[in-house]
Amino acid sequence: MIKPRTPAGVMELLPRDQIAFQRMLDTIRQTFERFGFLPVETPVMELSEVLLTKSGGETERQVYFVQSTGALEKSLDKGGADGLPELALRFDLTVPLARYVAEHEHDLAFPFRRYQMQRVYRGERAQRGRFREFYQCDIDVIGKDSLSPRFDAEIPAVIAAVFERLAIGEFTIQFNHRKLLRGYFEGLGIEGEAQLLVLRELDKLDKRGADAVRETLAGEGFGLGAEVIDKLMAFSQVRSHGHADALAKLDALGAGTPLFDEGREELRTILDQLKALGVAESRYALNLSIARGLDYYTGIVYETTLDAYPQIGSICSGGRYDNLAGHYTKSKLPGVGISIGLTRLFYQLQDAGLVGTADSSVDVLLALLDDAGLAHALALSQRLRAAGLNVETQLEPRKLAKQFQYADKAGIRFVVMRGEDEAARGVVTVKDLRRGEQFEVAEAELAAALLVEREQLRSAAGKA
Amino acid sequence: MIKPRTPAGVMELLPRDQIAFQRMLDTIRQTFERFGFLPVETPVMELSEVLLTKSGGETERQVYFVQSTGALEKSLDKGGADGLPELALRFDLTVPLARYVAEHEHDLAFPFRRYQMQRVYRGERAQRGRFREFYQCDIDVIGKDSLSPRFDAEIPAVIAAVFERLAIGEFTIQFNHRKLLRGYFEGLGIEGEAQLLVLRELDKLDKRGADAVRETLAGEGFGLGAEVIDKLMAFSQVRSHGHADALAKLDALGAGTPLFDEGREELRTILDQLKALGVAESRYALNLSIARGLDYYTGIVYETTLDAYPQIGSICSGGRYDNLAGHYTKSKLPGVGISIGLTRLFYQLQDAGLVGTADSSVDVLLALLDDAGLAHALALSQRLRAAGLNVETQLEPRKLAKQFQYADKAGIRFVVMRGEDEAARGVVTVKDLRRGEQFEVAEAELAAALLVEREQLRSAAGKA
Repeated sequence: MIKPRTPAGVMELLPRDQIAFQRMLDTIRQTFERFGFLPVETPVMELSEVLLTKSGGETERQVYFVQSTGALEKSLDKGGADGLPELALRFDLTVPLARYVAEHEHDLAFPFRRYQMQRVYRGERAQRGRFREFYQCDIDVIGKDSLSPRFDAEIPAVIAAVFERLAIGEFTIQFNHRKLLRGYFEGLGIEGEAQLLVLRELDKLDKRGADAVRETLAGEGFGLGAEVIDKLMAFSQVRSHGHADALAKLDALGAGTPLFDEGREELRTILDQLKALGVAESRYALNLSIARGLDYYTGIVYETTLDAYPQIGSICSGGRYDNLAGHYTKSKLPGVGISIGLTRLFYQLQDAGLVGTADSSVDVLLALLDDAGLAHALALSQRLRAAGLNVETQLEPRKLAKQFQYADKAGIRFVVMRGEDEAARGVVTVKDLRRGEQFEVAEAELAAALLVEREQLRSAAGKA
Repeated sequence: MIKPRTPAGVMELLPRDQIAFQRMLDTIRQTFERFGFLPVETPVMELSEVLLTKSGGETERQVYFVQSTGALEKSLDKGGADGLPELALRFDLTVPLARYVAEHEHDLAFPFRRYQMQRVYRGERAQRGRFREFYQCDIDVIGKDSLSPRFDAEIPAVIAAVFERLAIGEFTIQFNHRKLLRGYFEGLGIEGEAQLLVLRELDKLDKRGADAVRETLAGEGFGLGAEVIDKLMAFSQVRSHGHADALAKLDALGAGTPLFDEGREELRTILDQLKALGVAESRYALNLSIARGLDYYTGIVYETTLDAYPQIGSICSGGRYDNLAGHYTKSKLPGVGISIGLTRLFYQLQDAGLVGTADSSVDVLLALLDDAGLAHALALSQRLRAAGLNVETQLEPRKLAKQFQYADKAGIRFVVMRGEDEAARGVVTVKDLRRGEQFEVAEAELAAALLVEREQLRSAAGKA
């Protein structure tokens, strides 16, 4: 006998939790589609040569390689002389997107708006809340040669719509701009590699405290003056509250280098468009401490946080980049995009009690009182299904109490019963486990009555 | 520069094909849910020890093993002395189901009805139409200790609903019963292992012809008499046409062993219930040549074929089994289920011209005539989205002809335009690329008008 268990670092859910997870996936997908994004799915296995274009690096250490039985034996025979296995599992959805766009470049219309919601794999050290297999939900817009900064404003509108519909609490989309950041640093005489190192120190403000960070920046290696440090600290602590404040805070930064001014102008335009898109101004804010993947992003960068749960960190991040697929094509493919790590988010929302076990996807349990009722129950089930209801038919008679108990535990709201008396009168009895009530309805009107109840519940949930 | 390409044996689709594929997935999922099946997803990686419980066998030869960079290096250093890698990719959804049910046995309600629609992995030899990564869409009902044969009748009702809604042509769910089969063989004095060997020969009838098969069965090794061979051939060629004919054909088989009679009685009951479920009688038929996984199935077995495309083979197969998870638990877990190999099916449907490139998931392209119109276009887009429409906003002004061309190529039906004249009158112009017409509508009524058009189209498609 082998102990049935999953590998460490994967999330596997019981059905009612899976339903809750699936509803989040559906909401995200529907919202992505509302904004005109098109679906893409790529294989989980890519050619190692294609996937691992950057040599070395933390990410490569975490790659999972794949070998069929035959290939594995051959490679072991040779003592591994073949080098890396031919195949590897994707570790994100960005490299597969780059490969996809470059491979299908001539079949795609640009700007290409794609969404992709699939699992990715990383050989992370096993620990609580860290996953080796997890869902990413990504959108990106890819331009050919150029991509208007106007797309940068549409992205936060998508993020806002996603998290409003997910209804997991108040959130703020925070953004910064790499040109503003780099321009500001340049203005202070901090150039090139030093920008990165200073940013890393500033990033430790919360953890180390202002004094320790000041000391490091003033010390050997950096050697920054007190005035420069003051300015850096002040800059990185800029947060806006509301639309007008965001514009005012940008103005208050004063004059800067041409690069700085360019970044500020782009941010102003993006703020204007967020207003035109009707994104509530409580939903977005400047946060000039955000840096994110400095090597990769070149324009706006986004992070999204739940207002009541800052400790969860960013639940949706991304930004603008200059060239998606330089390893695969000579075409210049700038883009902007974001990613939601849904497995980790779901885990944390459950942990914080913000998502619960969902009601069943089954709307109705059709109870069976005795064998004589089977044929009628089967026929009635099919009529309810044709009307659009999800129906489980009890195929073996059991005590009613058992059937109620089962429905209750499974999260099924309605139990429909039809005894001899009801049959004679052409009605059925419906027990509504949510409200703890029961009512009679003509069998011919049952589907309509249940659909009305379901709709009321959904619109009530939508308003809540 | 690295050539961007996918590994051999995977299916990767352009967006419009992906939309068509996604619609099939959605239809299947929705239908599974209509019948009260609950969603399960399992990790793509299982522990090798758990996954590979059966030693040897064809399937194991095709397993993909997974190793992180670190584990791979360690194993190569040791010259592979560690044995098999710790992790492997699932090759079907049945073994993961067995592991899942055994692992979560005490948290699940039985009979447990689950659906699972995920990709599986097999190191198949690369050839046209063979996939190393493919979707399976499975349903199973798992009982604890026992499971009523009544579930065997519900499964074909699900299959019928799935393929009716997929609308890929007329189809027939064919079934046989292992007890009928084994009982019949026993009655002819063919027992144990010999049943399997005879069945394999009968399975070659189409390919080798009746004479060659007769010769083999009469020859050394089998040594069956002419009369027995006649009966076997007649039995395996039984096909029913319609409900009454199925019952008549069962009757005409005459008396048999108790096992045979039991199988026949179960088939009769299943036929009754299919009628009660309202499954059209053209949709199901007896086919006593169906054997399927003899080691595994113990009761009814199903295959589904497209009437006009028999060469595609079975597009949905399965059956009843006695014990799902004997490797993982002492509990007896009988079940019944089916599987649709959607990647292969989609490939073959495309090949046969039965599924085409889908219309876009985008309902409306909001054209942009000049920069001055941007703010209004953004606001209008958001209103259309709030009404439930999928909208792509053109963010940079382009020539109208280009925008039409783009929408047409992308399969977007409606292009909405608003020039100065329209703005002054509070209307917009809608170009319907499907009908090749254009019309004006008050801006306030635009969302409603487009929703009506979309709905009409959908219900027309539903009727077609």
